[in-house]
Amino acid sequence: MSYLDRIATCRRWDPAAYRPWVIDGRTLGRVSHGVARRLAGFPEVFVVGDDSVALAPGLDDFVSRSRAVAGVLGEMKARGEVPHWRGEDYPVVERWGEAPALKIERAAAALLGTHRFGVSVNGLVRSADGLKMWVAKRAANKQTEPGKLDNLVDGGKTFGMGLSENMIKEAWEEAGIQAELAAAAIPTGAVSFRCARPEGLLDEVAFCYDLELPQEFTPQNIDGEVESFSLWPIEEVLARVRDTEDFGFDVPLVIIDFAIRHGLIAPGDPDYQEIWEGLRMAE
Amino acid sequence: MSYLDRIATCRRWDPAAYRPWVIDGRTLGRVSHGVARRLAGFPEVFVVGDDSVALAPGLDDFVSRSRAVAGVLGEMKARGEVPHWRGEDYPVVERWGEAPALKIERAAAALLGTHRFGVSVNGLVRSADGLKMWVAKRAANKQTEPGKLDNLVDGGKTFGMGLSENMIKEAWEEAGIQAELAAAAIPTGAVSFRCARPEGLLDEVAFCYDLELPQEFTPQNIDGEVESFSLWPIEEVLARVRDTEDFGFDVPLVIIDFAIRHGLIAPGDPDYQEIWEGLRMAE
Repeated sequence: MSYLDRIATCRRWDPAAYRPWVIDGRTLGRVSHGVARRLAGFPEVFVVGDDSVALAPGLDDFVSRSRAVAGVLGEMKARGEVPHWRGEDYPVVERWGEAPALKIERAAAALLGTHRFGVSVNGLVRSADGLKMWVAKRAANKQTEPGKLDNLVDGGKTFGMGLSENMIKEAWEEAGIQAELAAAAIPTGAVSFRCARPEGLLDEVAFCYDLELPQEFTPQNIDGEVESFSLWPIEEVLARVRDTEDFGFDVPLVIIDFAIRHGLIAPGDPDYQEIWEGLRMAE
Repeated sequence: MSYLDRIATCRRWDPAAYRPWVIDGRTLGRVSHGVARRLAGFPEVFVVGDDSVALAPGLDDFVSRSRAVAGVLGEMKARGEVPHWRGEDYPVVERWGEAPALKIERAAAALLGTHRFGVSVNGLVRSADGLKMWVAKRAANKQTEPGKLDNLVDGGKTFGMGLSENMIKEAWEEAGIQAELAAAAIPTGAVSFRCARPEGLLDEVAFCYDLELPQEFTPQNIDGEVESFSLWPIEEVLARVRDTEDFGFDVPLVIIDFAIRHGLIAPGDPDYQEIWEGLRMAE
């Protein structure tokens, strides 16, 4: 097992299994052929071609698109075709921060293969015996990846909230980190991936932060999504990422990115360039 | 002017203007149509097709390929068709560290559009009045980009030397940094770009390092390639990168990567994701 195995997991998808969902000339989602056939049942909203999916003529602004697609998703939900419904909106965009073409229910982002955005915080403690990282264990009742290991904070980006604002909200909900402490987190870039998962195609950019925490701080979960936290020497975190699948499938990208940025994975590693390249989706 | 302008400069090339140079089924270089026509004059070495360039049958190992291509380059040099000859070899590879398909004269890497590798060191000083960065001014007689501003250390990767070993060698030649000081530099990943320049197609990965230097250290150029060094507040470096073209064309990528990793360019910037994406070549 190696870092490259963890990266490969995050890049596993077959372009031939999807039709691009094209809006205003841009691919904003990717729809499996099975889902495309179901969308073809709503011709007043979706124009489903053999090679691509589009919105029906006339659906040309944020409000009308959002309303029309919400109607379709509501019917699909009623038939049990949209698992893990969250009641939370995601923007449909190419890049974070641009004006969205529409908004959709979070659970449908995987179904329609739209771009998703997350925030991940590496929780760090410097001590006399070296650098340590906080590791969370996801609750056994989480909808996705129950019981897997996770970053201190790892959350999806909700519609209409700034990235850092969202990070601060998640830091409180997931780890009980007060806003003034979370605000010290340093944004360090992102990782991105596209892969086929049971819930659909995940096409995600996770914006990453490093947060140095005082030695006396202990995280405490508020929202019930984390079972426990533990503080590990960074070498142990990296070995567990490299040698096991104990972390949530995409968490290794964030931790490997941390390790690359801080020289913990160094140019002497024969896979160095390939690891570095693997932290982002190649278009 | 913006960071995105600096990035765009590093991504300016027209795929239609080149034919892939394919070796063992992999594209290891890109040759302009003009150069391809010249290579067609050496049919015992190059098989030049309309859509691609290959090596002649029988040239199937490192030694025979390197010798045959060196012969062609020698003749082209004699005709004045390989400017800036260096007498230094570059490996022809897809990724740093793999067994090279052959080696070629450094000056021919741009001509044949092969992958190039460099090392760049951000020279940093923490002081009571904030973070500062050493900026070099390239000598007026440098072959490429004379007089432009540069990183503290910025060099091409020679054949047969490890990345960090190469960084330490360049740190001495360019900035008079002793090996034990240079060894404290932290590798932090890389930036990559592909762009058309007067000397040909530059397709480069620059491996980046952060080096914190003591306040009392002053860099001193050894090899005559740097005219002077000065220590600037980081905000001034970033403003100069963003608002002018005073730095060598590819130096901004390294500095912008530094700024992203350290939160100096933050998610509040509406271009954040696009800047982050622009630090690497999309294939």
